Amino acid sequence: MNVTVRGRTRHFRTVAFNAERNSVELIEQRLLPHEFRIILTADYRATARAIRDMVVRGAGAIGATAAYGLAQGARSFRGTDLKKFARHVETVYQTLKEARPTAVDPVNAMNDVRRMMAVGESVAEQQALALAAAEEFAHHDVQHCEAIGRHGAKLIRSGMNVLTHCNAGWLAFVDIGSATAPMYTAQAAGKKFHVFCDETRPRSQGATLTAWELAQQKVSHQIIADNAAGHLMQRGRIDLVIVGSDRTLGRTGEVANKIGTFTKAVLAKRHGIPFYVAIPLSTIDWNLKSGFDIPIEERNESEVLGAWGVNGRGRREYVRVANPGSGAFNPGFDVTPPELITGIITPAGIFKPGELWRRRRKLGF
Amino acid sequence: MNVTVRGRTRHFRTVAFNAERNSVELIEQRLLPHEFRIILTADYRATARAIRDMVVRGAGAIGATAAYGLAQGARSFRGTDLKKFARHVETVYQTLKEARPTAVDPVNAMNDVRRMMAVGESVAEQQALALAAAEEFAHHDVQHCEAIGRHGAKLIRSGMNVLTHCNAGWLAFVDIGSATAPMYTAQAAGKKFHVFCDETRPRSQGATLTAWELAQQKVSHQIIADNAAGHLMQRGRIDLVIVGSDRTLGRTGEVANKIGTFTKAVLAKRHGIPFYVAIPLSTIDWNLKSGFDIPIEERNESEVLGAWGVNGRGRREYVRVANPGSGAFNPGFDVTPPELITGIITPAGIFKPGELWRRRRKLGF
Repeated sequence: MNVTVRGRTRHFRTVAFNAERNSVELIEQRLLPHEFRIILTADYRATARAIRDMVVRGAGAIGATAAYGLAQGARSFRGTDLKKFARHVETVYQTLKEARPTAVDPVNAMNDVRRMMAVGESVAEQQALALAAAEEFAHHDVQHCEAIGRHGAKLIRSGMNVLTHCNAGWLAFVDIGSATAPMYTAQAAGKKFHVFCDETRPRSQGATLTAWELAQQKVSHQIIADNAAGHLMQRGRIDLVIVGSDRTLGRTGEVANKIGTFTKAVLAKRHGIPFYVAIPLSTIDWNLKSGFDIPIEERNESEVLGAWGVNGRGRREYVRVANPGSGAFNPGFDVTPPELITGIITPAGIFKPGELWRRRRKLGF
Repeated sequence: MNVTVRGRTRHFRTVAFNAERNSVELIEQRLLPHEFRIILTADYRATARAIRDMVVRGAGAIGATAAYGLAQGARSFRGTDLKKFARHVETVYQTLKEARPTAVDPVNAMNDVRRMMAVGESVAEQQALALAAAEEFAHHDVQHCEAIGRHGAKLIRSGMNVLTHCNAGWLAFVDIGSATAPMYTAQAAGKKFHVFCDETRPRSQGATLTAWELAQQKVSHQIIADNAAGHLMQRGRIDLVIVGSDRTLGRTGEVANKIGTFTKAVLAKRHGIPFYVAIPLSTIDWNLKSGFDIPIEERNESEVLGAWGVNGRGRREYVRVANPGSGAFNPGFDVTPPELITGIITPAGIFKPGELWRRRRKLGF
């Protein structure tokens, strides 16, 4: 999407590849929203570190980063011995996989790349195919988000107030995003609407990343405390909710997403406000039989006990907010049941959560 | 309640009067939870500043502070001329009233004091009566909270997990508190339970004040992000919710309280979890006919856009968390309708919200 740096507006992707330097180009997301910087990873190990250290985060974005990282590693091999090359590629694969061991997207992306490069008959050919495959993975990610945008934009009418939670924006994908895709597409079509961003404690991705994205695209928006959405709904000031999802169960239509998503869904249901979840098909889990089987990560309590921000002297700093003698409980995700979800916006169209299983052939399972 | 400072445990009230020094003693709440300090106000103007600058906050606490401040001001008068004295007292009254113009408690408290001192036949007698009246106001505040504790403690059983929002603790009253009173009373009766404190963004009173209170009284507790309560309820980990109220409508049973209260009530209803509101009778508004007539204060957006805490060098500091180019919408309160409220815990017993009007004689209207 567009980013304006020192008055100049340019288009950026979250993840891209610089073939000349054999380097992955990433937006350094840990500096956002206070600083916009593109980094180039020196080698595949640096790319793995960028995934591990959250320079890049979000399902589509880390998938593309791993795919590019595998191509980067493959292309750094010198020699013509295909067996040695295969061992090298295996090392690269494992290094990138271990960067975020619980994530499924890097593995799926790298498996795609490996399958496509395997048809090459020389090291050079396989190296070229690896990069082509990674580029194709990234291209598909963009296409999927564009399709989500086309389907979802129909839900947004001028004058609407839209609520979103956390960041399922272009920074979580290669471009455009999932929950934000309908907004960007509607905006491009000339619709005028307003977005309320939940700040999304404890990590504040709404106040930082989503707000930054919307500001860059000049989408009208305001940040609200997570406590405020209920009041706004009660007063008729929210017309539509769109969120993303980390994992959607194909069998049940349950949606696992950032902690607090379930609360917004309960509130939306009470007020008769449509609640949509925007997802790429790759995040549908066709195996799990119940949302209660989804492991809910318990994150470090320091996230709840304080906040990261920029102090009066412009320095990034963590402040402890909470009582020093108290601890916290910090579940990272929650599960929203299908009866609270109006529809799931996918690249293949909008479905009721209960329809996913019946339509699983169409949805690629 | 008890506070442990450097290993020594002592009983403190939020607000007290030092007759020898003619000074109001206040816990400096802006330093909590990071520092515990008692301040003595030099004169009634300093007492008014303490109210205005939020050294002391909470309905009962600022009521008592204003009552004591009026006595303090009256007692500083030198002379025997009752007319001059009356003019002086009027100045004191106006100064204290203007310290927090929208609050009703200081005015009610000072009207009590003025009515009681008026029977004195000399300046000295009126001065003595003013202090006696202020002490009586504070004493009643404590008695009311004790009664809330007695009634509410019956709702808490050993093994329960209790959720509370914001701070309706002893720091908001002279002692004991409203929402916390049942907890302290149950704890004193030997019951073992656990409290989840909503952090209560944007001002984080749950993470700071309530957590500090519970830690001082050694009540088992954890702070949670406001986003986490829904998930905990879904997983059966919350058995009871108790919150306070800034204003409860006697005619309708609607409850205005800190932003986010309504959300917790909606969640509790969905999960069949009892939701109680603990209030002193003075916060019942018998006039307003609808919760929509309660003005919802919109507070400064800086509260949502960042956080106050203590940095790594032990300094209190504000950090900007949110995207620098984005604004916020920051409503301070919300209104919970009676159908979401299991009961209202008052010093006179527990009532269904719809009962208040029918029982208004018993409740002092």
